[in-house]
Amino acid sequence: MALFQPRDPDYEARVRDSFGRQALMRTIGARLGRIEPGRVEIELPFRGDLTQQHGYLHAGITSTIADSAGGYAGFSLFPAGSSVLTVEFKINLTAPAAGERFLAIGQVLKPGRTLTICNLEVLAITGEQRLTVALGQQTLMCLEGRPDR
Amino acid sequence: MALFQPRDPDYEARVRDSFGRQALMRTIGARLGRIEPGRVEIELPFRGDLTQQHGYLHAGITSTIADSAGGYAGFSLFPAGSSVLTVEFKINLTAPAAGERFLAIGQVLKPGRTLTICNLEVLAITGEQRLTVALGQQTLMCLEGRPDR
Amino acid sequence: MALFQPRDPDYEARVRDSFGRQALMRTIGARLGRIEPGRVEIELPFRGDLTQQHGYLHAGITSTIADSAGGYAGFSLFPAGSSVLTVEFKINLTAPAAGERFLAIGQVLKPGRTLTICNLEVLAITGEQRLTVALGQQTLMCLEGRPDR
Amino acid sequence: MALFQPRDPDYEARVRDSFGRQALMRTIGARLGRIEPGRVEIELPFRGDLTQQHGYLHAGITSTIADSAGGYAGFSLFPAGSSVLTVEFKINLTAPAAGERFLAIGQVLKPGRTLTICNLEVLAITGEQRLTVALGQQTLMCLEGRPDR
Repeated sequence: MALFQPRDPDYEARVRDSFGRQALMRTIGARLGRIEPGRVEIELPFRGDLTQQHGYLHAGITSTIADSAGGYAGFSLFPAGSSVLTVEFKINLTAPAAGERFLAIGQVLKPGRTLTICNLEVLAITGEQRLTVALGQQTLMCLEGRPDR
Repeated sequence: MALFQPRDPDYEARVRDSFGRQALMRTIGARLGRIEPGRVEIELPFRGDLTQQHGYLHAGITSTIADSAGGYAGFSLFPAGSSVLTVEFKINLTAPAAGERFLAIGQVLKPGRTLTICNLEVLAITGEQRLTVALGQQTLMCLEGRPDR
Repeated sequence: MALFQPRDPDYEARVRDSFGRQALMRTIGARLGRIEPGRVEIELPFRGDLTQQHGYLHAGITSTIADSAGGYAGFSLFPAGSSVLTVEFKINLTAPAAGERFLAIGQVLKPGRTLTICNLEVLAITGEQRLTVALGQQTLMCLEGRPDR
Repeated sequence: MALFQPRDPDYEARVRDSFGRQALMRTIGARLGRIEPGRVEIELPFRGDLTQQHGYLHAGITSTIADSAGGYAGFSLFPAGSSVLTVEFKINLTAPAAGERFLAIGQVLKPGRTLTICNLEVLAITGEQRLTVALGQQTLMCLEGRPDR
């Protein structure tokens, strides 16, 4: 997947700062992984208190890390002084989310001045094994002149 | 919206039992509201530890209660001894999720033997005011002969 | 479903004029039905040359009339001198599209200055019988100051 | 993108036969391009009678070729004697569909016994230039023991 030229050279600091203010990420134990222009990873260790009725990671949490990864993938390409809004996303849960930890990957497919489209993927990782458990597509909006903080 | 004839008269007990085993619902403080055949509500009081970077409820948590409400709306119409799987959902975040509490409503639009389609809506409630903050559509799968517990 | 106050009193003429310039609607034999603020219907008689491999209306044509109905539902609420763009839509094909004719209903759920969210439904009609064959949700964009013609 | 092992060695003949019975494809002038296990292309020359109000290819036709490409990508991996059903799809229209011809690419992301998930992309081609005009994700169902013809 082609990477992009960021409009703000400080994109990584801007992503880290905003992620640090997402209280939910601390609550569920998620942390940022690799950050590249137009591509952001979020890691989440499995925790029993994040599960659905069969003991797998709840689809809502799978969606949460996918949405944040995509949001920050888009945000990494936005100009300084802007903020990001999820307009909508669609996600397929392709396998039971069983694993030691999870990796959400947000990848910009089509950047735009107002709207940006991202691909979302969540992998379940157990030892060396990686299994795709969710695939999605997301529409983001760039709010120019409305700084994230 | 038309309600449906449940195939299992004990649908409500089955929904409550399954919801009670979703550890995530306890973790975020969500509880079941009204349960009718093909329609389930989930309530969530606002909490600062569930927020995104601007202090609103995180879109992932909005999606979480929407997904569970839809899943149990479908499950309420499934036969005894079956379980429910979210195949996919699509959700639009239509306004910042600011409110004292949130109400997710899952409503079956089209029940089916294998696949069931639900409408998802999340309202933010502050005093008497109710504002739609999310709208979605969800595809569920009924796994017959695979009891939920 | 609540209807809306149009910002342009000539909304109906504007919808009819724009629909008249959608060459595809003539090609497939679709015509406008009822037009209300925030709600537009499109009718399509069945034709054998619009079918998929089993003789039903092709999902792409079902989607086509759903997309146009939703687009004009949103457009009916836009100000004069603007145009409409489909950002994205999601559609479930809920039953084989068998019928004498089809009715697509686009209904605004959440109007907005930039983005508008619509509900999409397509019914198959045979004699007195009406069956829902598709259900969807759509995001539209209003391009202000860029007239539709 | 990894390709797949087809369960039916005659997958290509089966795809061509089914496509040949989609009357709509003839009506709009679409033809099959490359067929590989889990990946199918459909080509469509631009025609003025397939347009929306601004003279671009109608989003419904863009969606039509995307849906068929994805459907046949999935179908190419299904066993002999089965048929394919589109459960749902979601599509973003990422740019005005202006071009001499269009190429829809359906690519299986996650094959399954009952449900298969595909990626959808539509390119507009003008001379040497290729521009992505639509991106989507689709859920297919395999109906075993119900031959396509």
